[in-house]
Parts: sequence; C-alpha cells; structure tokens
Amino acid sequence: MRLNKTGEFGLIEIFKKMSRLDRSVIVGPSDDCAVLRFNAKEYLLYTCDMIIEGVDFVSKDKPELIGRKALAVSLSDIAACGGTARYAVVSMGLPKKFIGKAQRIAKGLFDLAKSYKVNVVGGDLSRSSRLTIDVSMLGVVKKNKLVLRSGARPGDIIFVTGKLGRSILGKHLTFTPRLKESRFLVNNFKINSMIDISDGLTQDLNHILKASRVGAVIYEALIPKSRVARSLNDALYGGEEFELLFTLSRKDAKRLAFKKKQIFKPIGEIVSKDYGFKLIDKNNKEVSIKPDGWRHF
Amino acid sequence: MRLNKTGEFGLIEIFKKMSRLDRSVIVGPSDDCAVLRFNAKEYLLYTCDMIIEGVDFVSKDKPELIGRKALAVSLSDIAACGGTARYAVVSMGLPKKFIGKAQRIAKGLFDLAKSYKVNVVGGDLSRSSRLTIDVSMLGVVKKNKLVLRSGARPGDIIFVTGKLGRSILGKHLTFTPRLKESRFLVNNFKINSMIDISDGLTQDLNHILKASRVGAVIYEALIPKSRVARSLNDALYGGEEFELLFTLSRKDAKRLAFKKKQIFKPIGEIVSKDYGFKLIDKNNKEVSIKPDGWRHF
Repeated sequence: MRLNKTGEFGLIEIFKKMSRLDRSVIVGPSDDCAVLRFNAKEYLLYTCDMIIEGVDFVSKDKPELIGRKALAVSLSDIAACGGTARYAVVSMGLPKKFIGKAQRIAKGLFDLAKSYKVNVVGGDLSRSSRLTIDVSMLGVVKKNKLVLRSGARPGDIIFVTGKLGRSILGKHLTFTPRLKESRFLVNNFKINSMIDISDGLTQDLNHILKASRVGAVIYEALIPKSRVARSLNDALYGGEEFELLFTLSRKDAKRLAFKKKQIFKPIGEIVSKDYGFKLIDKNNKEVSIKPDGWRHF
Repeated sequence: MRLNKTGEFGLIEIFKKMSRLDRSVIVGPSDDCAVLRFNAKEYLLYTCDMIIEGVDFVSKDKPELIGRKALAVSLSDIAACGGTARYAVVSMGLPKKFIGKAQRIAKGLFDLAKSYKVNVVGGDLSRSSRLTIDVSMLGVVKKNKLVLRSGARPGDIIFVTGKLGRSILGKHLTFTPRLKESRFLVNNFKINSMIDISDGLTQDLNHILKASRVGAVIYEALIPKSRVARSLNDALYGGEEFELLFTLSRKDAKRLAFKKKQIFKPIGEIVSKDYGFKLIDKNNKEVSIKPDGWRHF
C-alpha cells in the first residue's frame, strides 16, 4: 500500500485547491477537524471518518467493536482539537452477510456514543459488497481552547499519551478516545499544537512540523513502547494508535510533569525547521527520520 | 431488493430506540435532516447520504456526474427542510480502478458545491473495493421556515415539483436539487409538510402521512409524468427523483396556482387518517395504494 499522489494527502491537496471557503470557515480541510464560526464563545468542530471491511477491520471482528471503532475515530479527531463531541450522523453500507449483525454493530456504536454524551441524530443505510461505516461528527470548542497542528514553537516539549505499538495487536478496535485527557490538557495548560496518532507517530508528528514550519528531535529511549509491542518500529510507525501527540512550552511541560499523570510522556523537543526531524537512538546516534506510517494506497 | 427489518427503515427504528438525545436536538433521526439548536433565529440542519458503485451509479458513469450526485442528494435533503446549505465533509472509499478518475469525481462535486455556495471543509479517503462516497452536510434554516414531514393537515393540497419517471433514464445523476424552489416556497407560503422524493412518490408521501397521522388521495390524471417516462408506475414508484413533495392549505395552494409557476403541480389532497391512502385512476376508480418504491434490501 504505497502512498501516491491520489492518496489521502493528495486528495487533501485537491480539496484545498478546489474548495471555495467563505469567512465563516476558520480552518478548512487541513487539520483533524474543520473549524466553523458558531457563537460568541465557541467554534463548531466538524469531521468525518470512514472505516471499511478489509482495511480498517476484518469481517470476523466482533460486530460491537466494529461499530465502536466507527464512532471512536471521530471522537479522537474532536479530542485532537481540544473540543467536546456533541452530534453524529452515521452512513452504513451493509453487505447481506452482515444484516444479522447490524443490531450488534449499532449497539457498539451507540454504547460508546452514550458514554461520551454524543447525540446520534441521523443515518443512511445502503447495500454494499463490503461493510462500510462513515461517521460524521460535530463538536464544540471554546475559542481560547482550540488547538491546531500549526501552533508548535521551537523550544516546545513534545508529549504523547499512553503506550504505543499495540494497534496492530488489536488496540485499533478497543482504544479509548482521549477526550478526558484532551480536556485536562486544554483546561490546565497552553497546548500549542496537537494531533491524534492515526497515521503513525512519526508521520503525525511530521504533520505538526509541516503545519508549524518547525523541526523536531525525539529520543528512542523516551518512546513509550508497550510491553507487548513487537518492535520499536511498531511504536514509531504504526498507525491507528489514536493517542494524542501534543506540544507545549518547557515551562508548562514542567508543570505537567509535576502533575505526575503517568499517561503523559515527553518524547522530545520542537526545534527550528533547519534542523529537520531527527531521532536520537539508544547509542546516542542521530538518525534522520523518514516520516512513514500508514499508507492508504 | 425486498425491504426487511434491517432495511433503512428498520435501521432508523434501531437508531430511534438506541439514541439518547439531549434537549439541543429539535428533531432526531426521523426526517430528511436532523434539526439542532443553533442561534436565536436559526436551526442547524444536519444530514448524510452515502452513494455506492453498483447501487447508486455504475462504474462507467461519467466521474463528474458521480461526484455531483454525491453532493446533490444531501442538497436535496436540506431543500426538503426549507434550509440553505452551508458546509459539507466528504468521505470517499476509492478502488484502484478509480484512482485516475479521482480528480474528475472531485471536480463534479466541487463545481456543484460552488454553485450552491457550500463550503467543503474536510474529507477522508480510504481504499475500497467499490467506489463509495458519503457526504455529510450542514445547513441553516430560519426557525419559522423549518418544514418537517409531520405538519400535513387534512384539507392540505399535495404538490410536487417537476416531472416524474425519468430517474431510471439517468435523471438520478443530473437532477437539480430544488433549493431555489424550496426557498421560494418557504418565503412566500406556509408549507405544512415537505419531503424530497428519494424512495418514490408513493413511499415518500406515505412517510408524510405516517409522520403527520393523516391520509391522502391522489389523482392519476394529475401526476406530472415525464413525456419520456416508460409508465405511470415509474412516476408513482420510481426512486431518486429528488423532486420536492409538499403540502399547504387550500388557500395558500390557490395563491401558489396564481403564481403560474409551471414547476409546481397539485396531485391530490390530504384527508383524515381513517380514509387511508388512495389513488383515483383515470376511470375514476378508487384504488388503495401499497406504498412502494425503492427498496434498499
């Protein structure tokens, strides 16, 4: 599955080029969510994610977990922007072989929606050869709490939530969208940039670097690799972790460290763009990183 | 393709049963759009529609028309509620064989978005075995202009826009979403109920009858059958016409007739629920209607 010009990033380029956006659009198709004018204190967040049988799950996965994942990936996008999830609509392409499982798929989705207080307000059902679920979600974020990919500054410390490298072992179906952690962060610190790890740690950090026009150095010894991860590569490059990757000033990073929340781990530092994107390995050797990760094509 | 309990209407039942909606949801999954609290004067409209290769179009259809249709079906939902379309996000499942056509699909979609001033603010791209496009759309509607399926009253005259029976001949790819007509109607008349014809005239009228707890009588001689339609059945039962079907008081209906807008045609009358749903055929014979139409399964 090699990326090409019509891969996801290619399509986003087409979208950016073709889309005519009026002044009510604060952020268009370039971040985890679009950001729209809403009211005096808040912005509206708007996102969509499609999951497809054979790509994002397989037909023998538990139906409840498939439905759960369909909603969870959008929740993760709302978390990445510092927001609160509010509404969702769900389109489903349902093959004959899944008809008997439709209720269980719906239950997985609605149970998660309930626990995050998301109103599922509409849906569309079609026949399909492979099970396909697309969730579009609306959230809200206080204007002064909005976090984008583009705010990282040299000197920022880079943090990640949770432990990496388990996605391929099943965590992609069971992960907890980091809305609670996101709320804690934006309510207590000035988070300069944030993204959720969907394409892989290095690739998603690279999205921040590009959007913020900065470089980064990360330390192999600091990467919070899961005990059960097969290799460091799974932690560095594995997609669909749905952990938060964020940056904040050194001063705020110290305050965060004092909170002793085990879930937040520093992994490196934002530096100037000229420095590029480097990994310091366990032998203290500097390695240039080719941002890699999940290839949609 | 027979409807069964897990067909679209079955899923909507599951949604209605499972969904927990807070008080900011004015209308949940029961109309063309969900209706959400927004600001002092307006509601937010929220809808989604998925189109799939082999069901809603075939692979040899013009790529521009496929992209156009993906957006047009959601525009039609916004029109059915009396609103103005504002924002959309687009998820696409793209098979290898369509990669070379992605730009043309996007062009069809964006050209239509531009002409209706819709901001396409986000997207998601995946691999897929069949081309699948899901568009979620946000619109706004003035609170006093919102039209639902549930407002039809005995004595209302039933109208339809345009001519029916051409969908299967290709109109499903080229139809004009009736936003202009919808705006004209809600700005000049009290429209009691409205729906877009996606499942077929009789089936969609039946949605209005059920939601409004009323009956109807329609006249075969009045059905605006296209000159090229193959049969009356195509006009009565054919899905994906995307014309507006609406009801308004006899008094307003007379005013509408005076406007001499050829596009609005009366086809019958709303009556009491006890009367049921009847067609008066060309021999003046009363026929009970089995609401039929597009079956998703």
